[in-house]
Amino acid sequence: MTSVNPAAAFDWLDVRASARARAGLTRRLRSRPVVDPVLDLAGNDYLGLARDPRVCEAAAEAARRWGAGATASRLVTGTTTLHTELERELADFCGAEAALVFSSGYTANLGVLAALAGPGTLIVSEEYNHASLIDGCRLSRGHTQVAAHADPDAVRDALAGRTLRRALVVTDGVFSVDGDLAPLGELAAVAREHGAAVVVDDAHGLGVLGQGGRGSVWAAGLAGAPDVVTCVTLSKSLGAQGGAVLGPRRVIDHLVDTARTFIFDTGLAPAAAGGALGALHLLRDQPELAERVCAVARELACRLGTAGLAVSEPAAAVVSVRAPSPQAAVEWAAACRDHGVAVGCFRPPSVPDRVSRLRLTARADLTVADIDHAVDVIVRTAPPEAHAV
Amino acid sequence: MTSVNPAAAFDWLDVRASARARAGLTRRLRSRPVVDPVLDLAGNDYLGLARDPRVCEAAAEAARRWGAGATASRLVTGTTTLHTELERELADFCGAEAALVFSSGYTANLGVLAALAGPGTLIVSEEYNHASLIDGCRLSRGHTQVAAHADPDAVRDALAGRTLRRALVVTDGVFSVDGDLAPLGELAAVAREHGAAVVVDDAHGLGVLGQGGRGSVWAAGLAGAPDVVTCVTLSKSLGAQGGAVLGPRRVIDHLVDTARTFIFDTGLAPAAAGGALGALHLLRDQPELAERVCAVARELACRLGTAGLAVSEPAAAVVSVRAPSPQAAVEWAAACRDHGVAVGCFRPPSVPDRVSRLRLTARADLTVADIDHAVDVIVRTAPPEAHAV
Ligand SMILES: Cc1ncc(COP(=O)(O)O)c(C=O)c1O
Ligand SMILES: Cc1ncc(COP(=O)(O)O)c(C=O)c1O
Repeated sequence: MTSVNPAAAFDWLDVRASARARAGLTRRLRSRPVVDPVLDLAGNDYLGLARDPRVCEAAAEAARRWGAGATASRLVTGTTTLHTELERELADFCGAEAALVFSSGYTANLGVLAALAGPGTLIVSEEYNHASLIDGCRLSRGHTQVAAHADPDAVRDALAGRTLRRALVVTDGVFSVDGDLAPLGELAAVAREHGAAVVVDDAHGLGVLGQGGRGSVWAAGLAGAPDVVTCVTLSKSLGAQGGAVLGPRRVIDHLVDTARTFIFDTGLAPAAAGGALGALHLLRDQPELAERVCAVARELACRLGTAGLAVSEPAAAVVSVRAPSPQAAVEWAAACRDHGVAVGCFRPPSVPDRVSRLRLTARADLTVADIDHAVDVIVRTAPPEAHAV
Repeated sequence: MTSVNPAAAFDWLDVRASARARAGLTRRLRSRPVVDPVLDLAGNDYLGLARDPRVCEAAAEAARRWGAGATASRLVTGTTTLHTELERELADFCGAEAALVFSSGYTANLGVLAALAGPGTLIVSEEYNHASLIDGCRLSRGHTQVAAHADPDAVRDALAGRTLRRALVVTDGVFSVDGDLAPLGELAAVAREHGAAVVVDDAHGLGVLGQGGRGSVWAAGLAGAPDVVTCVTLSKSLGAQGGAVLGPRRVIDHLVDTARTFIFDTGLAPAAAGGALGALHLLRDQPELAERVCAVARELACRLGTAGLAVSEPAAAVVSVRAPSPQAAVEWAAACRDHGVAVGCFRPPSVPDRVSRLRLTARADLTVADIDHAVDVIVRTAPPEAHAV
C-alpha cells in the first residue's frame, strides 16, 4: 500500500467549494457586535424578549444560582428543579398534560419522531416541514411518505392506503419560510378517522398565535388532545435556547425512557431554562404581546403590498416578499442591510417551493418609526421587477 | 370509515411502558435542588468548573450583554463576536486551524457526519461510539460498517475491502462508558494508508488529556493534522452547553455551507458561549487542572481495586466498576445515593458490552475528604459478589 498525502483526504471539499462559489451559494458568517445599529427583521425573537433586561437577568440569575451547565444528561445530574418548574409552566400555559425540555428545538424534534415512529410506522410528513422534522423522520426508520403542502386530502389518501399498523402525521404549525398556517383542525380530523397521531412543530406559533400566545395547537382547539403532540422551541418567542415536547403524560414518559436525544445529551443549560421561564412569565402577564406581533406583521405586509410588492398574507409573525430571482434576492437583502435593515434572504435550495424571497419577521417591540424605516428601505431598494412578480 | 377513540392512537405506549416496567427499565427524572448535599460522582463536570463562580459570572455577564438567546441561526443573526471569539480560542487552544460552534455536542456530531459523508462514503464506525455519532452515521446516508472496539486491524480490513471512493473513520477519543482510550495514533495511520479521513469525538478528552487538557487528539500528536476532524463538547470539562468541530479551515467552511444542524438550528445561547469561554480561560491559566482530574481518577480506581472491586484502569476521568448483574448495579447505585454519593449506573441496553457497572467520574475539585467518603461508601455498599466479578 503506497502512502498517501494526508491532506488529500479532504481535497474533494475544494471541488465542492468551487462549485458552490460558481453557483453563488457560498455562505458567510457575519458576527454582530453588542450594540448593533442595524434594525433586525431577520431573527426569530418575535416578542423582542431575547434582550429584554428582565429576561436577561433571569438567565443571568439562573447561571449564578445553578451553574453554567447542567453537568450531564437529564437522567443523571442534568435535571434541576428549574427544569422541572419550566416543564410544569410550559405544559400549564399550553394546556398540555406534561412537557419535557430538550437542549434545542432541533433535538426535541429528532427525539420525538424517533421515539414515536419506527419501522412499523407510516409517517405522513408535510412537504414543507422544517429540516429537523425531516431529519427526525430519517432517524426514526419509519416509512415516510411526503404529503403535499397544506393538503389534508393528500394526508387522507396516504393514511387510507397504508399497510403499516401505526401512523403519525407530522407538520409544522406555522411554516418557517412563508409563515403560513397548517390546517391543523382538518389534519387532526383526518388523522383521527384513521387512528393516527399528530405531531405539530409549533416553533413559530408559540408566543404568536392562540389566546395570549398559547400557540397554533391551542388556536386550532387541539390543546390537551390525547392524540396530539406539540414540539416548541425556547429559542424564538421565548428568546432563549432549548426545545420542549408537550403532550399526554404517557407520551412524555415514553420519551424519558426512549428518546435518544434526551437520554444521551447534556441537559439544557440553566441560563437558557431560566431565560425561557422569565420570558414565559412576561408573556403570561402581557398576553397583548402576541396580538402585537401579529398586528406588526399585518401592517408590514399591508404597506409593502400597497407599494406594489408581492407579499404573503401573514398568518403569524413571518412576512414573505417575492424576489424576481435568487440573485436579485441576494442583492436586495444586501441593499437593505446597507441601508440599516437586516432581512432574511431565502432561495433554493433552502426553500421548498423554489421561490426566492425576502423573509421579514415582525417583532412585538418594533416602534412606528422602525416600521416606517423598514418599509421605506425595503421598497426603495426593491429591484424594478419585484413589483411584477 | 368508523371514527376511532382519539386516545387509542397512543395505547401502544402503555404496552411498551408495562414491558419496560417488568424489565426494570423504567427511568425516572430526579430534580436536584440548588444546594445538593449529595457528593456528585455521576456528572461530567470533570474540572468542577460548571459551578465555579468565575464561570457562572462569565455566563451571567454574557446573558446580560448579549441577551438570553442568539435569536436565529448562526447564518442569520445568531453569530455574535462572542461566538467568533470562542471559536478562535478553542481552535487556538487545541491546535486546530479553525472551529465551529454548534448548539450541542450532539448536533455537532450529527452535523459533521452528515456533511462529510454521503451515499458515496464508507463510514468505519467504532462499535462503542456514542449515540450521537451513531445517529450521525444514520443521517449521513453513508454506508456504515461497524469495526470492533479498539481494533485498528478491523478498521484496516474495512478500508482495504472498500469499493466506495471516500472513507471516514469515526471514533470516540475516550469512550464514554468505560473511559478507555481509542488507539488514535494507529487509527490515523491506518486511515492514511487508505486515504481516509478521521473524525474523533473528544467529548471526554478535552480538559482531561493532552498537554494542559488539550485533548486526546493533541495527546496522540494529531493536533492540526490535515485529515483529522475533532468534535468536542462545551458541556463537560468546560461546564456549559454546546459543541464545536475543530479541523482544517476547508472542513469548517464546508460545514458552514452544508451542515444541516448548523444551518437550520438557532445559535448557541450567549450565556453558554460565555461560560465555556470563561472555563477555557481558567483551564489555560491552570493547566494542572487536567492532571489533577486524572490523578483523582487513578486514586479512586486504585483504592477501589485494593478493596477488591473490579475496576477499570482509568485513562481519563471515568472509572468503571463492574457489578454482578443489572439489578445489583441498580441497587448498589441506590445504596450509594442513600449514603450521600451519586454514581452513574449503566446497564443494558445502554452499554455496548452488556456489562452492568457503576460509572464514577473524577473531578479536579474533589477533596481528600470527598475521595475518602466516596471510596468508603462505594465499598461499604458493594454487593458481596461485586468482589468476585
Ligand atoms: C420550524 C422549526 N422547527 C424547529 C426549529 C429548531 O429549533 P431550535 O433552533 O430551537 O433548535 C426551527 C428553527 O430553528 C424551526 O424553524
Ligand atoms: C462521547 C459523547 N459525545 C457527544 C456527547 C453529546 O454532547 P452534548 O451532551 O454536549 O450534546 C456526549 C454526551 O453527552 C458524549 O458522551
